[in-house]
Amino acid sequence: MEEMKVQHSATSSEDTQSLPDKRDVPLDLVGITGFQCPATIAGWEKDLNRAQSVVATISLGVDLDAERKGVHLSRLMEVLLASRSEIRLEGLMGLLEETRARQGAGVAEIELEFTYFLERRSPVTQKKAMQGYRSWYRGRLTGSGKSTLNQVVEVPVMTLCPCSKAISDYGAHNQRAYVTVTLNHEGMTSEKELEVHLEEVVEMVEESASSPLYPLLKRADERYVTMSAYDHPVFTEDVARNVVTRLRGDQRFDSFKVSVVNEESIHNHSVQAVVQHRNT
Amino acid sequence: MEEMKVQHSATSSEDTQSLPDKRDVPLDLVGITGFQCPATIAGWEKDLNRAQSVVATISLGVDLDAERKGVHLSRLMEVLLASRSEIRLEGLMGLLEETRARQGAGVAEIELEFTYFLERRSPVTQKKAMQGYRSWYRGRLTGSGKSTLNQVVEVPVMTLCPCSKAISDYGAHNQRAYVTVTLNHEGMTSEKELEVHLEEVVEMVEESASSPLYPLLKRADERYVTMSAYDHPVFTEDVARNVVTRLRGDQRFDSFKVSVVNEESIHNHSVQAVVQHRNT
Amino acid sequence: MEEMKVQHSATSSEDTQSLPDKRDVPLDLVGITGFQCPATIAGWEKDLNRAQSVVATISLGVDLDAERKGVHLSRLMEVLLASRSEIRLEGLMGLLEETRARQGAGVAEIELEFTYFLERRSPVTQKKAMQGYRSWYRGRLTGSGKSTLNQVVEVPVMTLCPCSKAISDYGAHNQRAYVTVTLNHEGMTSEKELEVHLEEVVEMVEESASSPLYPLLKRADERYVTMSAYDHPVFTEDVARNVVTRLRGDQRFDSFKVSVVNEESIHNHSVQAVVQHRNT
Amino acid sequence: MEEMKVQHSATSSEDTQSLPDKRDVPLDLVGITGFQCPATIAGWEKDLNRAQSVVATISLGVDLDAERKGVHLSRLMEVLLASRSEIRLEGLMGLLEETRARQGAGVAEIELEFTYFLERRSPVTQKKAMQGYRSWYRGRLTGSGKSTLNQVVEVPVMTLCPCSKAISDYGAHNQRAYVTVTLNHEGMTSEKELEVHLEEVVEMVEESASSPLYPLLKRADERYVTMSAYDHPVFTEDVARNVVTRLRGDQRFDSFKVSVVNEESIHNHSVQAVVQHRNT
Repeated sequence: MEEMKVQHSATSSEDTQSLPDKRDVPLDLVGITGFQCPATIAGWEKDLNRAQSVVATISLGVDLDAERKGVHLSRLMEVLLASRSEIRLEGLMGLLEETRARQGAGVAEIELEFTYFLERRSPVTQKKAMQGYRSWYRGRLTGSGKSTLNQVVEVPVMTLCPCSKAISDYGAHNQRAYVTVTLNHEGMTSEKELEVHLEEVVEMVEESASSPLYPLLKRADERYVTMSAYDHPVFTEDVARNVVTRLRGDQRFDSFKVSVVNEESIHNHSVQAVVQHRNT
Repeated sequence: MEEMKVQHSATSSEDTQSLPDKRDVPLDLVGITGFQCPATIAGWEKDLNRAQSVVATISLGVDLDAERKGVHLSRLMEVLLASRSEIRLEGLMGLLEETRARQGAGVAEIELEFTYFLERRSPVTQKKAMQGYRSWYRGRLTGSGKSTLNQVVEVPVMTLCPCSKAISDYGAHNQRAYVTVTLNHEGMTSEKELEVHLEEVVEMVEESASSPLYPLLKRADERYVTMSAYDHPVFTEDVARNVVTRLRGDQRFDSFKVSVVNEESIHNHSVQAVVQHRNT
Repeated sequence: MEEMKVQHSATSSEDTQSLPDKRDVPLDLVGITGFQCPATIAGWEKDLNRAQSVVATISLGVDLDAERKGVHLSRLMEVLLASRSEIRLEGLMGLLEETRARQGAGVAEIELEFTYFLERRSPVTQKKAMQGYRSWYRGRLTGSGKSTLNQVVEVPVMTLCPCSKAISDYGAHNQRAYVTVTLNHEGMTSEKELEVHLEEVVEMVEESASSPLYPLLKRADERYVTMSAYDHPVFTEDVARNVVTRLRGDQRFDSFKVSVVNEESIHNHSVQAVVQHRNT
Repeated sequence: MEEMKVQHSATSSEDTQSLPDKRDVPLDLVGITGFQCPATIAGWEKDLNRAQSVVATISLGVDLDAERKGVHLSRLMEVLLASRSEIRLEGLMGLLEETRARQGAGVAEIELEFTYFLERRSPVTQKKAMQGYRSWYRGRLTGSGKSTLNQVVEVPVMTLCPCSKAISDYGAHNQRAYVTVTLNHEGMTSEKELEVHLEEVVEMVEESASSPLYPLLKRADERYVTMSAYDHPVFTEDVARNVVTRLRGDQRFDSFKVSVVNEESIHNHSVQAVVQHRNT
């Protein structure tokens, strides 16, 4: 036991991760994932003065040369925590630059997942309440300056089936659908500010469906939503296409992806539609 | 190092779990959980000759006296695997008896979770397809002979809101709901056979909603489902009550619980209704 | 159809949920579930002046008489949102009282689920970082004044297997375990304050395992954690029992439950231990 | 409303999905997703005569021209169910050909997710038990004949940290890791058979970690696993690299991806490593 201790102490000052590796296998990404952390998201909404406290689930990593044995994981955490109190979009690219520098890496990548809340007013009685939208920011920075930022938001909406309405004497099946929009911004730098706010994307999606969802509806509101949805039937395909027509040609981002999952109320499975488009 | 090896070898013949414990804390349940295993479910349906291959997620455990340090976990697995090829309901209580005996325990408990498939025919064109229903069997056996078996099945259905229909000039919001029924059988023994089949419970629930769900619908079927659901509006509360009226007084089980979660198509949250009832 | 339309217009001012029901089925619980909402948790920690912003997933409901058709769901939301900006423990029972009054109900129940963050310092270098703990508060209020509050927190820890250590010449398998502690407070009123803080429970659990987990560890910390865990081996059963010995006899709550799920590093399934105890 | 009703009756024989669309938005993928179905997987293992019954979760879809309003969803289901009783790898590309033909589409895509079971023997006592591996097959067929098949399997293993071992006098933290390997086969046709079986991939991954996992271990086995893992420490990075060295240069597939998620027993978050490689 004592001998083992001595033997181990001998190696204990050595930094195993810094040792050379002989397998000749560079890795695309090494890092932490699934780290939960409170964060303040500032400057991500129309009202720039209002910051929102969120709970973020975070991945942060770098690529790794074939020669190096491992990544310094605790340094990833230290870079992250230094900016913990307030994560800003402008700050995201700077955080990636610091990560690259601290690791001597070529590429640095980050993903933040969080639920973002926006106030929704019921359509008739104007009752206010907050509704949550799952959101993601993904940033990637390379040595050659090819940096990208993905802005992603999932918007729950209501869809009423046009086929069901057309073939039935009355009624039409309708359901919740989840629309995920990904905006790709290329050539992001730490000086550049995002011009698109999550709230804008949410509104475009809500206008593309049979009806938005609301956290709080009184009877007059429910009547309005029911009839309005019946007046605006959409297939899963239609929602995807309606969102595309709104995002197409917008020069504030380079490309985008729209993914719709329609939780059919007549089946126990879903229907999906996916489309990618390049604006620039 | 050598000494440690010797020291450890000295203790290696000792069964740590069998050592006495001095904290004076008996435990209610100790065992394995989340073990996935293929299983053949026989005799759990109307057509008794047809066995269904399922993938079961299993928990199996026993209580533990204050004096004993631990449970023999590998023996739990051995009891389980001996009956792996075909798990029968009649077999479940026998498996618990063997578990108690092998562990010298007072109480033995098992839970099996699996998806059970039933053929569903579309209402007009009679197109056939399989639909899956999440199911659970939970058994508990005590030394005093107080044994129980829970038969649980989750049935997805369609609900159309009566309020929305009543207050609107046309249309009505509708959505998927999940109805979970738990039947409690007391005094189960290894000789006793279950008289209620999952399929029966599924059918009772499907008749209690606005419409069943179907894996495959042609246009004529979709028209029928749409109009039939509009003709049979139900609140979350109604589904729960309709199921209760069907199960109430049935002497084949001692008590039951009905839980309905309605995935509102106008909100991003759900509505639930829960009720328990004693028949005997 | 025309007649139906007319009839529908005629009934549109009628409140369907208030209609009498003839099935004679009272319901135990009807309400909203899965509603996500930002909340400020105040007074739930040692440092009473510091409030934490969390994202809560909420269920709120009441029982329903056999005679009444439905619950006023939008009123549940209104009661909830009135207290949205700052949910306090003292406030929880008051919120349930208001819910009962607004619905004319006998029983009111609430559940809040959220991730609570506490600062953790690494054991040697004292590096600080936040670690999240899934938490739940469940309150129940009845007309007869039999009110209860459940305080629940899930604590991730490290467990090192004593059997593996004893039978091996070197090494010992170890893994993450999740310990869920539920404290039951009976006879809660809106005047009464909780005397136990989540942080206290977290610390008791962390002392009951082989080692706490840490968000950030430097090399000296990792060495300490590795050796400290090896020096404090515990079975799943031991963790449960160690927590019981710390909670047993504490008169600040009436009963408690400890549930440990050990994610075995040698298997792809888990081992669990569960125990309930009454203090008063 | 009356007119709408009449209009609806008039259009009820019309197939809404076949109508022309004027938004000029072609869609990349439209189809069903999340459909659960029992399936028999044949020819996917070394012992070709043994077929395994699994529960598959399926997505099937096609691309959609800008001019067409929608996809015929029920036909997707019909193509799928015709081959339900036994899904073979050879059959997958044929199923995609039929899907394209029935929809008049350019591209057809399928994904099957299922848990595949393989027998595992404990290393010393040779105790046999089944262990489940999450698996996916993804096929894609285009009009230009550019077809691909992805063979994906997730393998749970044990990893023991080399740094922890090196810096500590005794012990070393270890944990479960999940290794996901994706093999990409280009130019697949309905005549071509897959030459790589899932079992082969599972074995290569299990040899790349500190130890495989086992469903059933007796004391002698646990001793062996503990010491063997201590003798073969690997970082997350090492597991990824070890798998790459085994897959690199194998001409039976064109490219591959390895993704490792290490569920650190000293943290409540994970560490990941990702690498892609082209063989041909």
